[in-house]
This record gives sequence, C-alpha cells and structure tokens, in this order.
Amino acid sequence: MRFFADILDTVRRRGPVVHCITNYVTVNDCANMILAAGGSPIMADDIAEVEDVVTLAQALVINIGTLNSRTVEAMLVAGRRANSLGRPVVLDPVGAGATALRNSALQSLLREVRFAVIKGNISEIGFLAGEDARARGVDAEDASLVTEGSLKGASDMARRLSDSTGAVVVISGAIDIVAHAQGVWTVRNGHPLMARITGSGCMSAAIIGCCLGAAPDEAPQACLCAVSSMGVAGEVAAENMVCAGGGTGSYRSLLIDAMSMLDGPTLTCRADVKNG
Amino acid sequence: MRFFADILDTVRRRGPVVHCITNYVTVNDCANMILAAGGSPIMADDIAEVEDVVTLAQALVINIGTLNSRTVEAMLVAGRRANSLGRPVVLDPVGAGATALRNSALQSLLREVRFAVIKGNISEIGFLAGEDARARGVDAEDASLVTEGSLKGASDMARRLSDSTGAVVVISGAIDIVAHAQGVWTVRNGHPLMARITGSGCMSAAIIGCCLGAAPDEAPQACLCAVSSMGVAGEVAAENMVCAGGGTGSYRSLLIDAMSMLDGPTLTCRADVKNG
Amino acid sequence: MRFFADILDTVRRRGPVVHCITNYVTVNDCANMILAAGGSPIMADDIAEVEDVVTLAQALVINIGTLNSRTVEAMLVAGRRANSLGRPVVLDPVGAGATALRNSALQSLLREVRFAVIKGNISEIGFLAGEDARARGVDAEDASLVTEGSLKGASDMARRLSDSTGAVVVISGAIDIVAHAQGVWTVRNGHPLMARITGSGCMSAAIIGCCLGAAPDEAPQACLCAVSSMGVAGEVAAENMVCAGGGTGSYRSLLIDAMSMLDGPTLTCRADVKNG
Repeated sequence: MRFFADILDTVRRRGPVVHCITNYVTVNDCANMILAAGGSPIMADDIAEVEDVVTLAQALVINIGTLNSRTVEAMLVAGRRANSLGRPVVLDPVGAGATALRNSALQSLLREVRFAVIKGNISEIGFLAGEDARARGVDAEDASLVTEGSLKGASDMARRLSDSTGAVVVISGAIDIVAHAQGVWTVRNGHPLMARITGSGCMSAAIIGCCLGAAPDEAPQACLCAVSSMGVAGEVAAENMVCAGGGTGSYRSLLIDAMSMLDGPTLTCRADVKNG
Repeated sequence: MRFFADILDTVRRRGPVVHCITNYVTVNDCANMILAAGGSPIMADDIAEVEDVVTLAQALVINIGTLNSRTVEAMLVAGRRANSLGRPVVLDPVGAGATALRNSALQSLLREVRFAVIKGNISEIGFLAGEDARARGVDAEDASLVTEGSLKGASDMARRLSDSTGAVVVISGAIDIVAHAQGVWTVRNGHPLMARITGSGCMSAAIIGCCLGAAPDEAPQACLCAVSSMGVAGEVAAENMVCAGGGTGSYRSLLIDAMSMLDGPTLTCRADVKNG
Repeated sequence: MRFFADILDTVRRRGPVVHCITNYVTVNDCANMILAAGGSPIMADDIAEVEDVVTLAQALVINIGTLNSRTVEAMLVAGRRANSLGRPVVLDPVGAGATALRNSALQSLLREVRFAVIKGNISEIGFLAGEDARARGVDAEDASLVTEGSLKGASDMARRLSDSTGAVVVISGAIDIVAHAQGVWTVRNGHPLMARITGSGCMSAAIIGCCLGAAPDEAPQACLCAVSSMGVAGEVAAENMVCAGGGTGSYRSLLIDAMSMLDGPTLTCRADVKNG
C-alpha cells in the first residue's frame, strides 16, 4: 500500500483529466482547484456528449448541487459508461435528504452506477446510510460537523455505507473520516473558514477525483491524499489571511493558492491522518 | 420600528437560509456574499424541487439575469409556494425592458407572486413602473444611475411602484432609494468601482434576501440594512484597494472580504441613511 | 490601417456591449474581464431572447465550452441575427474534435453563421481546418501550444482556415498567431501561469469580442489588440504575483486587475507583435 501523500506527486506528473458533471455555483472553483492540484478539468453535462467526454477522462465526478432533470440523465449515462470503461466515479450527494428530486436522483445513481468514492457531510451520508440525522438528536447545524464526540457513531455509519455500496465513504467535517473495508481513517486538518465560503466540499470531491484519476487502484489512499491536501491548503490559506486582511473573499483565492503551491514534503509533514 | 443596522447582527445570529433562483454569471458571488453576511445560501432551480427547497428557506430571491423557459416556470412555482408559506420573496428584474422574454416573464411573476421587495436600477424599475427611461430623456448609461438631480423623480416612481405592488421598492444607483408606504429613504453609500465588476446588483438583492430572512416583518429596515451594508462594504473595499494595487479583479474579493468583516457599530457609524 | 493598440482606448471610450453565449465554468471571468477592458457584457442564452439581446450588442461571442442542445439552437439563431444586423461574431470552438456533439454543433455553426473571428488552440483550429493534431505526431499536451518549432505549420494552417471561412483566425499558445487574407501576425506575450487557471482562452475570446465591438471594420487589428492585451495583462499579473505569494487563485484576480489597469502606452510598449 502506497504512502498516501505520494499521490500528490503522481497527480502532478500524470495530470489526470477529470470529467465533472457538477453544479453551476462552484464549477469555476472546482476547475481552478483541479488545475491547482495538477489535474486537467473538463466540465460537460449534455447527455449527447458525456460518454465521449468520460472516455477522454481518468475519473468522473458527479455532484448533484444544482441538478435538474436534464443533467440527472446525463449523470446516469456518464456513470454507466465510466463503469464500463473502468474509470473511477466519485459521488458528491449535495443536499441528500433535502428534496424528493435529490433523493430519487441519488436512488437511481446508487442503483445504476458503481461508485469508487462517496463523499458528503454527516447529514448527507446519514441519509444515504438510511439514518436520519435529526432522529439522532443532532440539529441541522451540528449535523454537518463531525467532532470528537460523534466520531465513533459517524465512523460506524461510514463503514456500513461502504460495506453496502463497495465505495470508499468520506465524511467531511471538523474531523474527516475515510472508511472502507480495509479500515477507517481520520484526517484532522482544515480550518473553520472553509465553511464560510461556498464550494469547499465541491472542491474536495473534485480533488478526490483528481487523486483517483492518478491512482485508480488505490482509492482509500487517493481519498486520504485529497482530503488531507484540502485540509492542509485550508490551514495554509488561513495562515496567509493575516497578510490579506482576513476576509472570506480573499480566503477563497488563498485556498486555491495554497493547493497550487502545496508540495509532497509539506503535505507529509502537516497531514494529520490516523488509522482506526 | 427597529434600528435598521441591528438587523446585521440578527442575520449573524439566526443564519437565515436564502433560496436563490438566479443567473449563472454571478451565482458564486451571491453565494459567497450571503455566507459573508452570515446567511446560508441554497441555489436550486429545477421545477421538481424548488417547492421543497423554499420550504427549508427563510427567504427566496428571484433574479432573472439568465432566465430561460425552464427556470421561469420554476420561479413561478417557487414564488407561489413562498407566498403560501409566508416566506418573503425578493425580485431582481435584471434587464427589465430589454427583451420580450424578460418582459413577459416579469409580467407573469408580478401577476402570480406577491413580492416583499423589488430591487433594480432606475431603468429596470422605470420599466416595471410603466415609464420609459428614454422617454424621460435619460440615455442608457445615465439611466442606470440615480443622482441628486434625478432623485425626486426616481423617488416618486419608486413610491408609485410600491403602491401598486405592495412591495418595498429599491432603486440602486449612486444614491440608493428605498420606497414604501411608510416612506422613502435614501442611502448614500457605495463606490463607483462597484459598477466595474459584475454582480454588485445581484449580490445586493441576495443580501436583501438575507436581511429579510432574518427580519421578515421589517422589510423596509431589512432593505436599508442590506443596501447600506453593501454600500459600506463597497467603500471599505475601495479603501483597501490601495494595498491590493487597484484592479477590479481584487476589488471583487475585497468586497466580499469587507462584508464578511463588517460589524454593527461600523455599519451604524458609516451608513448614510436619510428619511424623505 | 489603424495601429492596433489604439483600439484599447476606443473600447474604453465606446464601452461596446458584448453579447456572450458561453459556458457556465468561466462566464463570471468573461464578464469581469470585459468590464475590466472597458466593455459591457450581456450573458443570455435562451432562444426566445437572443435575437433581442444581440440587437442591443456591438458584438456576439459564441463559446461552446458547456454547450447543450438548447444552447446550440440559441447560438445558431443569435449568430444568424448578428450576421443580418452586421454585428461581428466571434467563435471559440472549445474542445473541437473532442466529442461528436461539439463537432456537429461546429459544423452547423460554420455552415449557418459567418464569423468575423475564430479563435482556438492549435488542436481546435487543426480540427476545424480538417487536420488531425495527432496525425501530425503532436501529443495532446503539446498540441495546445504553438512554439517556434511548430510556428510555420500552424501559421499556414490558420491561413488556410481563414481563406476557407473568411474569418480572421487566431491560434492561441506560447506564441499567438493572427491570420487573415491581409497577412499573418505573431504575438509573443503572455505567461505560462495563464494555462494554470481555467478561462484564459475564454477571456481572450471575450476580449476579442470587446475590441471587435469597438472597431468592427478592423478585425485583424482588433484581434491583435485583444490578444496582446491579454498577453501583457498575463505578464503584469505574473510580475505582481511576487507580492501576492505566488498561487494560481490570486493569479486569476491579478489577471483581471492587470487588464483593468492596462493603458495604451503600456500596451504599445510591451506588445510584441510581428508581421509575417
């Protein structure tokens, strides 16, 4: 098993093409973040071309942030094609549980596409795992955070969803969880400012696609590399905020800056990844 | 009647969820600006889910910047549902008067949805009020600015549109006007650089939604808070341009920075709001 | 024949309205870049209004980056209308050759619309010129760059596409080529960082639209002005990176900054434009 941080260098050496069918809110951030990490983004969502596009790509990222009936069909077609080509597919189930449209789209996606990775916050993953966040006495705000107190329950839930889907399951939060048959890891990197800009979660899924595209046979390591890279970039960006004055508009640029300048030794040194 | 600037703190305390059906040009800026102000944005425009989404939100913002036949239907459905739930709805009639599609969409929206706030530049509001900006001898460029000279006529027009629609009417320009049955206010904040980036107007409507979501029963005060917050943020951003070098690309980030760091006392001190 | 750099001042004096039917990935960057150059962007893609919108504009830019069946129809309608009104039309054939949908859309566009300018990287222009980049032994990466070694072949190809379409043909790369019946020019400006953010090419096409809108009868000069302006802005942005720390997130803002502050004398002094 390869050391996860080495995958960042592989991304930069191979420049994987990452096909994203994603929302129009953060699509520019996702494209710039993929470029910053060393990959090559292609955003395309028309059903008439997604099969061609995914054929050119090393990974597919499906993000349902602003789904509509047209794009859901394209997601299904692209996902099935990626499966038949053996390309890894990442699912970012934005807003799972929030609307009937999202829930039925997710049901179709999970039935028809085999995902290499499913990444969401605890309430999204909870919905996919068949657990209602509110039923656990977690209010909407806290539901999106994984903390030391809720870590055990969240890890078990991620593990169960991984068992039932075969995907590596990533729960993002104050502590990130990466769960798979091979084990459960925690990543304690990142910064609260990441939640004050739109797109941190989407960019994280995009970077997972990037790392998977570079290391398709090492999905758990690719997730650890992606999640810790994003977290370390978030920390470095926060440190650089002092010079920039401290606002969230600048933080967004600094986050991409930090990813574009992140190197393997810094990632290795700063990543706080633990097994178990 | 509450002091308008206090609503900024309410936004930060309550974190209102703001549902935006908006254009794909400035949607990322709107989301980041809502987050910077302390709210929580949800962008969703598919007709199959907008009713669910608006149910989760404290306010709805409808912006027709890049409307199409699919999204116009979603706007109508979401607007009616917001009305039936008692959620305030904001209309940003981007490009009113410019194309037949926009005009007919606006006609439907105004007929079928009750708006809490309508915000536009003087030419857009003039169109909705049934007045042709050019007929008043105002050329296209000047039509988008309210200045001391045109203030009286603009205020009267805003007042009439408010009377006929029941909405608070906001005209943005060098001087902003907030008009309602309870009176007319002027806001003399902002900076010319705001017109040199795309999205200042869209972000302003998004922040109105944010303030309304936090203070739904105080629509005029919510508008004054939103409009003066945006204006003061625009001034602070311009002041911080000196360090940043002076370009419009940085100004966009600095504007969001300034909103994210704006506090009640600064707003109170700098807001230039006058009644009458 | 006017000196190309003078067109930048014309843009600022006339403030041409540029109608863009473009992708949702970089649309915000295109709008802000047009504003930075002194133009006025309108993004609109619904078939029911593009004819109205193009009537209000001085130029139309068609970018197929995230095309779909709905927007392709709108592109055709808008393009034909622009032709009948005598408004210049720019084509940015993003991903030409990559998918059947793109290829058939481009075939329709080239058959039904008369373009003033076609701008792409060498692989996109190669596809339109009926040459397969790979058949020339150029791998995917290098295919997007024009270097001293490939300059002659690329110039000839651009010239042939210009002859067959009547459009000025611009090939973007390490060296930019502007080809027309009147001659071939090279522009040696720009910086490698431009390829590390998304949207450099899209913004370049948008600025070509801007310059054409200001100087519709001088298409080659307008292209030289646009391409050299973008290149010089890219250089200035890279120089200013030292203060900003060096990341690609900041580079994106600095690029727009540099365009917003670029003046005629600086452009004249720094532009490296050669005939032949």
